Amino acid sequence: MRTYSPVGFSHVAITGPFWRERLETVLARTVPSQYRQLERHGILHSLTLPQPVPPLSIPRDQRNLTMQVFWDSDVGKWIEAASYALTHRRDASIESQIDGVTELLSTAQMPDGYLNCWYAGREPEKRWTNLRDNHELYCAGHLLEGAIAYFQATGRRRLLDLMLRYVDHIDATFGTGPSQKRGYCGHPEIELALLKLYHVTANRHHLELAAYFVDERGRSPHYFDAEAAARGDDPKKFWAKTYEYNLSHKPVREQDKVVGHAVRAMYLYAAMAELATELDDTSLKRACEGLWRDLTGRRMYVTAGLGPAAANEGFTRDYDLPNDSAYAETCASIGLIFWAQRMLQLDLDTRYADVLELALFNGALAGLSRDGERYFYENPLESAGHHVRWEWHKCPCCPMNIARLIASVGGYFWSQSEDAVALHLYGGTATTVEVGGRKVAIREDSDYPWSGRIRISLDPERDAEFSLKLRIPGWTKQASAAVNGLPVNLAAIRKGYLDIRRLWRKGDTVMLDLPMSPERVYAHPLVRSDVGKVALRRGPLVYCLEESDNLGRRMQQLRLPRTADLRLVPRPDLFDGIATIVADCAALDTSDWGGELYRSDAPRETTAALTAIPYHLWANRNAGSMTVWMPEA
Amino acid sequence: MRTYSPVGFSHVAITGPFWRERLETVLARTVPSQYRQLERHGILHSLTLPQPVPPLSIPRDQRNLTMQVFWDSDVGKWIEAASYALTHRRDASIESQIDGVTELLSTAQMPDGYLNCWYAGREPEKRWTNLRDNHELYCAGHLLEGAIAYFQATGRRRLLDLMLRYVDHIDATFGTGPSQKRGYCGHPEIELALLKLYHVTANRHHLELAAYFVDERGRSPHYFDAEAAARGDDPKKFWAKTYEYNLSHKPVREQDKVVGHAVRAMYLYAAMAELATELDDTSLKRACEGLWRDLTGRRMYVTAGLGPAAANEGFTRDYDLPNDSAYAETCASIGLIFWAQRMLQLDLDTRYADVLELALFNGALAGLSRDGERYFYENPLESAGHHVRWEWHKCPCCPMNIARLIASVGGYFWSQSEDAVALHLYGGTATTVEVGGRKVAIREDSDYPWSGRIRISLDPERDAEFSLKLRIPGWTKQASAAVNGLPVNLAAIRKGYLDIRRLWRKGDTVMLDLPMSPERVYAHPLVRSDVGKVALRRGPLVYCLEESDNLGRRMQQLRLPRTADLRLVPRPDLFDGIATIVADCAALDTSDWGGELYRSDAPRETTAALTAIPYHLWANRNAGSMTVWMPEA
Repeated sequence: MRTYSPVGFSHVAITGPFWRERLETVLARTVPSQYRQLERHGILHSLTLPQPVPPLSIPRDQRNLTMQVFWDSDVGKWIEAASYALTHRRDASIESQIDGVTELLSTAQMPDGYLNCWYAGREPEKRWTNLRDNHELYCAGHLLEGAIAYFQATGRRRLLDLMLRYVDHIDATFGTGPSQKRGYCGHPEIELALLKLYHVTANRHHLELAAYFVDERGRSPHYFDAEAAARGDDPKKFWAKTYEYNLSHKPVREQDKVVGHAVRAMYLYAAMAELATELDDTSLKRACEGLWRDLTGRRMYVTAGLGPAAANEGFTRDYDLPNDSAYAETCASIGLIFWAQRMLQLDLDTRYADVLELALFNGALAGLSRDGERYFYENPLESAGHHVRWEWHKCPCCPMNIARLIASVGGYFWSQSEDAVALHLYGGTATTVEVGGRKVAIREDSDYPWSGRIRISLDPERDAEFSLKLRIPGWTKQASAAVNGLPVNLAAIRKGYLDIRRLWRKGDTVMLDLPMSPERVYAHPLVRSDVGKVALRRGPLVYCLEESDNLGRRMQQLRLPRTADLRLVPRPDLFDGIATIVADCAALDTSDWGGELYRSDAPRETTAALTAIPYHLWANRNAGSMTVWMPEA
Repeated sequence: MRTYSPVGFSHVAITGPFWRERLETVLARTVPSQYRQLERHGILHSLTLPQPVPPLSIPRDQRNLTMQVFWDSDVGKWIEAASYALTHRRDASIESQIDGVTELLSTAQMPDGYLNCWYAGREPEKRWTNLRDNHELYCAGHLLEGAIAYFQATGRRRLLDLMLRYVDHIDATFGTGPSQKRGYCGHPEIELALLKLYHVTANRHHLELAAYFVDERGRSPHYFDAEAAARGDDPKKFWAKTYEYNLSHKPVREQDKVVGHAVRAMYLYAAMAELATELDDTSLKRACEGLWRDLTGRRMYVTAGLGPAAANEGFTRDYDLPNDSAYAETCASIGLIFWAQRMLQLDLDTRYADVLELALFNGALAGLSRDGERYFYENPLESAGHHVRWEWHKCPCCPMNIARLIASVGGYFWSQSEDAVALHLYGGTATTVEVGGRKVAIREDSDYPWSGRIRISLDPERDAEFSLKLRIPGWTKQASAAVNGLPVNLAAIRKGYLDIRRLWRKGDTVMLDLPMSPERVYAHPLVRSDVGKVALRRGPLVYCLEESDNLGRRMQQLRLPRTADLRLVPRPDLFDGIATIVADCAALDTSDWGGELYRSDAPRETTAALTAIPYHLWANRNAGSMTVWMPEA
């Protein structure tokens, strides 16, 4: 049952410096440069039909099939990001670019509504024959999300109408009816898009179709088996070897281990959580809670990076979290944000918001360069210096994903119910909500994440009684709050939310103090890669060491004594002003080593100082080593 | 200039328990089971000509070409190992197997002497067109080494005569003459075989041909460029990307960094070192010394494993020695033994013998299971439990390599010159040499590597004056020696060899004591993977922790305090009796961890005991984690 709903980003102004800077970069640089990249790499051109048929006689792994088969989704995701940009600031040039794409899509749409440029332009007779691998419904989902966003930003319906015809076709094609295919997509995504559509159309068919795709997944007899056999393929010769890869190894309510491809997992779990809310489905909710505990208790990096392995772009074994080979795809952390936000609607509990925030400020944000035009697909927690941000990728899913996330970041700050407003994230936002029967303007001002001193100003049109629920993050100790200067009793904190219920008047001010000292983080001893190591964090930010600040190549020889004081040092000269963490530490000394590689005397140690910067800022200066975890002395 | 020559294994009796057990296992189990495997996997059958032509129209990386193209070498290496077995103990069944193979090879030999079953049976017109990739000369080398060994074991010449005809053909085909190809093999090996042949035939042509192959390597214009162009291939599209891969990136005398494919590097360097000795070539000697310093100072695992990367089966960057992903091919450590032995002929210096011994007892020996029928190709220094020994490999180079090494291990113990006998390794051997003009029987008795108390008994036919040079390993402290009970002044140690020169009489006895306490080993601080970690060794043996002895899954949580006493605990119940290293250590405690994966309090520690076993014995019990390096507390 839905008690809280997020306040959409279009109703939230970003006023604080941290997210303002990221947002402006995405608007001014990321979105326009991505259009140029889509053009340069032939992705836009691929929408112009007809297209030559690739040599399908050669095996799948040798024809780069997937490089093309999911390009519709990249376009859809760019339209979504660009439309979010338009929501902030209309732009005729972007709008004409989207209208141009709409024109191509309109040409590509088949008479019955089917719309997939890869299939329509190349082998239309094979459509819907390989849901397991070929991303048709995934592409549909991203195009649909793009269409919804463009409609919401501009009021123009043409793209949305195209997509509504396509959704009708999908609705007619898939389902439990006698003439329908009982299929679902190898890569979850259409479910989230349909739920978004349902919020726009209020058409219950759209909700039910999303529910169908979730419920059908993993049932026996297995659809992907039947589908492969129908193609003449041996279902046992699935290249990914296990249906865990696409989360169809069992019905979703029976899934209790976080497995498979990390992005697919997150998109599926997010859809499950949203459906659990919409349908008040306790069995889905229970499954989500079990998966959440499994992920956050055994399978998540300290940065909220997800999926250690490149082989399946996903999960492996409990506590298997290697640092230098971490895959930790940017899209996976973004998917985790989607999931966490939906868990927060099921249950206003800071453990969901803590992870949402962790993923936002670390695992996801690290995927975009400071200049807004370079990216990471993989986000390791340690690098010997060979990780360099790229301008484009043969599988360009992450760039548009991080763009759409940041362009809509305001949507993750606030939730509301009939008589409560909840604030999950801090950093300077303003919104107006209808609560307690009144229109209430609220703004939050802070220099978060650099400072935990937060001021919330309320401006109801008339006096209004409602709850203001303020998140007290799990990482803070000794938070304090005051309303109009009078201390609030913090006994009222429930699941990490401080509930301040009162008759709010114009000009009321809440001061919230979330002390954020630099602190050490230790991993569970079963995480083999982190035994004997320590990481640093402050507030929502995980820190790392980079060569640029730490003795160059000798950086890896720094060891942090357990008792060393961690000092916060503001650095206005770095990245327009950040707070670094500095500590005295031990540095292994190489001066008494001759040509030998091994010896029986322990290395001597000298003292040195280490300087840590926020993880999301790494790899924005010279190439060099980086590490999140450092040995403890 | 050759001052010392190794005493061949056929003149050395293995009397001590350590190597006797390994040798008996290889004779009784390894050699016969390998013949069965060669039969079962079609490798023997591949010698029966003609064979069907594989579809060469498809690209090289898609037709498993090399799987077949080097099979002659596997047969050759098995003949060599089996012939060494025959040297110890004649066996009619093995001899008839080798005679059978000889018959097949005789049929395969072309009228002009060319002998390569892959080419002769499939595409004879393409012979000698791809020395870079297709292993023809490598195969020739291994068949030649097999033929020499069989001749020496049995006196039968048929196989050797076939190979001599082939060598004549090779000699006519390659060289600097106007009608000759100026080629050399992508995988060095023929050079070592020709040098072995030269020691049998004393035919200087054989020495000169070996020297040609070494000297020609890496010259400009580059032979592999020309050869690729002649095939119609683009030389720039070499799949391995760089000629460093096959050590032809520059002329050998200019090579000063250890790069490329580790086995190819070791075989080349071994040939360079032997040629430097045979030809008294100081420029080659200098190159070898530089490469040796580079390898042992920057690019060698503590186990003498070589080559961290699977991608090139070889070397990467200085100090890049990751433990869990270490490739460290068994054949590479064996190749290092070949090289070290030849460096020891150039210069009687224990730094060469130390590495030879380290590779023998660790990096190489780990490649063969206790039962003699299972193998490791890769020898990581850390495993989460997924490394399991296999019975056969699609590239079965390591099994026969470790078999031939152990079957001839006696050949690494002794060297001699006209008036000196040098003893490099201990563990119970006996030999008779001609030295100081007399025939002298010498035996060394010890329980090495479990004990460093060594007794050497001399039995000259008549009194004889000569130097007995005893290696004092680099790892020992406070060695002591006595002749007939009288202490020897250890000031006479030069480059790690104690020179005892005297008139030796029948019944003279030297007692040598090499104290071998368990000790800690630390890596150079630039080795990122080992910062804050410690390894254990005792004498020549590197130790490791295995789950079977250490708390199961909690093994990885053990931390060894720097001050903890290391105790030697004999374990007659393990592997027929070994010495373990036991220490009190700290164990991270998980009992106060709830469902959280990260926290700000350091993990609590309890005390525990760790038990380390010799590295070469790992993975002979239940599957489970293993580590050589453990965090220091």
